Amino acid sequence: MTNPVTQDRRHFEDLAVGEVFDLGQVTVTKDMITTFAREFDPFPFHLDEAAAKSSLLGGLASSGWQTGALSLRMLGDSFLSKVASAGGLGFSNLKWKNPVMVGDTIGGTVTIAELRRSETHPQWGIMTLDFDVRNQKRQPVLTMRLANLIETRSAS
Amino acid sequence: MTNPVTQDRRHFEDLAVGEVFDLGQVTVTKDMITTFAREFDPFPFHLDEAAAKSSLLGGLASSGWQTGALSLRMLGDSFLSKVASAGGLGFSNLKWKNPVMVGDTIGGTVTIAELRRSETHPQWGIMTLDFDVRNQKRQPVLTMRLANLIETRSAS
Repeated sequence: MTNPVTQDRRHFEDLAVGEVFDLGQVTVTKDMITTFAREFDPFPFHLDEAAAKSSLLGGLASSGWQTGALSLRMLGDSFLSKVASAGGLGFSNLKWKNPVMVGDTIGGTVTIAELRRSETHPQWGIMTLDFDVRNQKRQPVLTMRLANLIETRSAS
Repeated sequence: MTNPVTQDRRHFEDLAVGEVFDLGQVTVTKDMITTFAREFDPFPFHLDEAAAKSSLLGGLASSGWQTGALSLRMLGDSFLSKVASAGGLGFSNLKWKNPVMVGDTIGGTVTIAELRRSETHPQWGIMTLDFDVRNQKRQPVLTMRLANLIETRSAS
């Protein structure tokens, strides 16, 4: 398969189960939390410090969906932008383990858990990635498994 | 449990398995797609019309994570803001079924799939919700199952 956009990127055949990638880091500010929450997740514990303090989270915390979006962005920057990916298929078992509070820095790793060629469309491969996202105290904040569609070099 | 923020909202005991909620609708514009993609998912098929046309998506499409975020926002507006929810616990089995293209209108339903009281913390209940998000042609675009932590009126 020849695709001018992705020809210099890593293809299905170039990837190996067990490869681990460092996600880099991002620090989550109050402004980032409230901006995202206003648009997508406008609950008091993501918007208002007093309400957040009296909530189960104990303080202003990011939307869990934002933690996921930031994790995906880190994945793109550190790894997926160098891969001939055609996009995500879905994910399983996302778990929010600890809240991400104002000022927390998150990072972590992604591991290639599975690689399989599509049986019906052998020009495509499916790469499964396990996320392990942690805060600056090394506490887990998010785990999930993402399935991505990857170009192969050859359908055979 | 008395919580001034949530006391007038529906609690665990007020909810029933099988209840279905209409999510309302949102139309996804080119500006929404590129703004979200620049921040969280900067792949050519979410940013550039020419690159998107030659991709598997066949045109400019929203990030799947954005489709999920918009679905969560619709859930908040139509249902979850009236429930004594303390936040999400996680997701399982998210599947992107069809891309969301510029100008598409998405909506759908959420169904209460499961309600169970926490065994270890009986003052809390866990509500499981099944999303069925579709476009204006009634084609499925996203399904997922969300687990939410809900206040009970009484721990017994």
